[in-house]
Amino acid sequence: VSMQPLQWLGNKVRLLDQTRLPHEEVYLELTGYREVVSAITEMKVRGAPAIGVAGAYGIALGALGLKADSREEFLTKLKEVIQAIADTRPTARNLFMAIERMQHVAEIDADAEGIKQALIDEAVKIHAEETEASQKLARFGADLIENGVTVLTHCNTGPLAAPGYGTALGVIKYAWEQGKKIRVFADESRPRLQGARLTAWELKQYKIPFTLITDSMAGYFMSRGEINCVIVGADRIAANGDTANKIGTYTLAVLAQEHGIPFYIAAPTTTVDLKIASGKEIPIEERDPAEVTRIDGVSIAPEGTKAANPAFDVTPHRYITAIITESGIIKEPYLERLKKIVL
Amino acid sequence: VSMQPLQWLGNKVRLLDQTRLPHEEVYLELTGYREVVSAITEMKVRGAPAIGVAGAYGIALGALGLKADSREEFLTKLKEVIQAIADTRPTARNLFMAIERMQHVAEIDADAEGIKQALIDEAVKIHAEETEASQKLARFGADLIENGVTVLTHCNTGPLAAPGYGTALGVIKYAWEQGKKIRVFADESRPRLQGARLTAWELKQYKIPFTLITDSMAGYFMSRGEINCVIVGADRIAANGDTANKIGTYTLAVLAQEHGIPFYIAAPTTTVDLKIASGKEIPIEERDPAEVTRIDGVSIAPEGTKAANPAFDVTPHRYITAIITESGIIKEPYLERLKKIVL
Repeated sequence: VSMQPLQWLGNKVRLLDQTRLPHEEVYLELTGYREVVSAITEMKVRGAPAIGVAGAYGIALGALGLKADSREEFLTKLKEVIQAIADTRPTARNLFMAIERMQHVAEIDADAEGIKQALIDEAVKIHAEETEASQKLARFGADLIENGVTVLTHCNTGPLAAPGYGTALGVIKYAWEQGKKIRVFADESRPRLQGARLTAWELKQYKIPFTLITDSMAGYFMSRGEINCVIVGADRIAANGDTANKIGTYTLAVLAQEHGIPFYIAAPTTTVDLKIASGKEIPIEERDPAEVTRIDGVSIAPEGTKAANPAFDVTPHRYITAIITESGIIKEPYLERLKKIVL
Repeated sequence: VSMQPLQWLGNKVRLLDQTRLPHEEVYLELTGYREVVSAITEMKVRGAPAIGVAGAYGIALGALGLKADSREEFLTKLKEVIQAIADTRPTARNLFMAIERMQHVAEIDADAEGIKQALIDEAVKIHAEETEASQKLARFGADLIENGVTVLTHCNTGPLAAPGYGTALGVIKYAWEQGKKIRVFADESRPRLQGARLTAWELKQYKIPFTLITDSMAGYFMSRGEINCVIVGADRIAANGDTANKIGTYTLAVLAQEHGIPFYIAAPTTTVDLKIASGKEIPIEERDPAEVTRIDGVSIAPEGTKAANPAFDVTPHRYITAIITESGIIKEPYLERLKKIVL
């Protein structure tokens, strides 16, 4: 039985509050789109595919709550809802993919009630498709994981981040379920500590043996030959394969190349953005510096300390051994091959 | 006026408790060697040169407290004191350099009282020599810092870590005092957060503009061309130039090389260990995993999470652009050149 961190209950979203993990499992019931906006910006739900699904449900909830005398008034108000969802977080492609699909559905020839139902149906469909994609992706990716290896992963990429199996962690889980002996190094992933809080929590449930390390330790363990491959997720993949992912990913890619270790990206095709030629064009979210200067409300730096907090970095495609998608494993030349599988 | 985080008061050591920084400036008075042992193991004092000086004073304090009926009994008991100091932390060379000097002094032809005074004198001398070395080192190193550059540093290497100017941070401070415009990126340096807690505290006092980042962000800022050089300290330098320093240093060295950025080590010659041929032989301290799974007493991972906590890593000499010492700036071939300056 898989976790249900994100569920549609017909007229509301049931959400596992990821900011309370690993010590408390608190489920929220979101009944309006503003609650979804808050949940995304405050990272109660995070992970590119999960943000996409939550965003779609947010639009559906927003539509359900709209009162309008005409189709035109409804669509005008719906635009505001969609804008609020779009303004939550800029980097993950999946959110904008979901928004584009919802916008497209809103254009059907129907009255407000008809559009509302179509929007709900589309959100449920996006959720189902992401779930299925994660399972296919995990199966493809597991072929790259040999028996007995030690895998390094970064941030959190399990079912909390991507409905179904997850992305990078889904690959690991699938390989584990195939009976392969695997060990995992999980980077804590400062500043938000998704590795320590979420990946450790997921791996513990799957009973996959793992060791938590700080982000600064990856190079040390690679230099000792203790890491055989790196698998991470993605927030946006440009047409040439350049990949934005959680801050720290690029450093792992450089280290992996220096040590001759394969470096894999695992992401559904909804993460690919063919409209963007290279990673240079991917917008990088800059979050509150307090995420760096404080941990759990405790100040770790002198008062007034200036901190930077880019939430993502970009790994140029030349560092990426392969991109694992639900349509198969993609290698160089990325541009040509990504075009074939992304609609 | 420079800070006095470590002072000898004739029969006790006055120590700024670094675990209480940056929010509280608490001075401890250590009157026995066991208090010095605790202060070093609990990292109330840390930084390779400062550990060396504290260790020397610890031996002096231990000697002062010994009651013995004969020179032989005194020396036997002194051995236990020295062993306790030696057992505190394994990686920093400076501690063992100081111990060797103190052991040598204990062999003089004198009675217990005479040896006690000689040990005090030697500890004070070690302190004075480290202070002078840091000033010379800072002056040499400042020549490598051009006007207008942005420097990345890791962990803490100011006067808290090395009496006088410090090491890497001493170089930065000296260049700043020369009127060079400098910006600093300070890595927070998980797990113990010496960058966030101590380097930020020192830089704030010197009014040098700095930005605190997580360890995972260094690659991002290098890739954007925002870092011009990296300067870090050292805990032990092998004869071939391989350098053990705070965990995460090796990663910065790999990143610096990948981006064509100079990577400098700043350390007094007391950090060089000619008896060790290469970094492979440097003992790496493994600290309590709770330093990774908890921050300020707050658990950040699920109960029972296994964590690794190597406190140092080794940067092979091929990544090091130069080693800045009080005897000048050393470049390849390190073996030959280090031999010339280390007695």
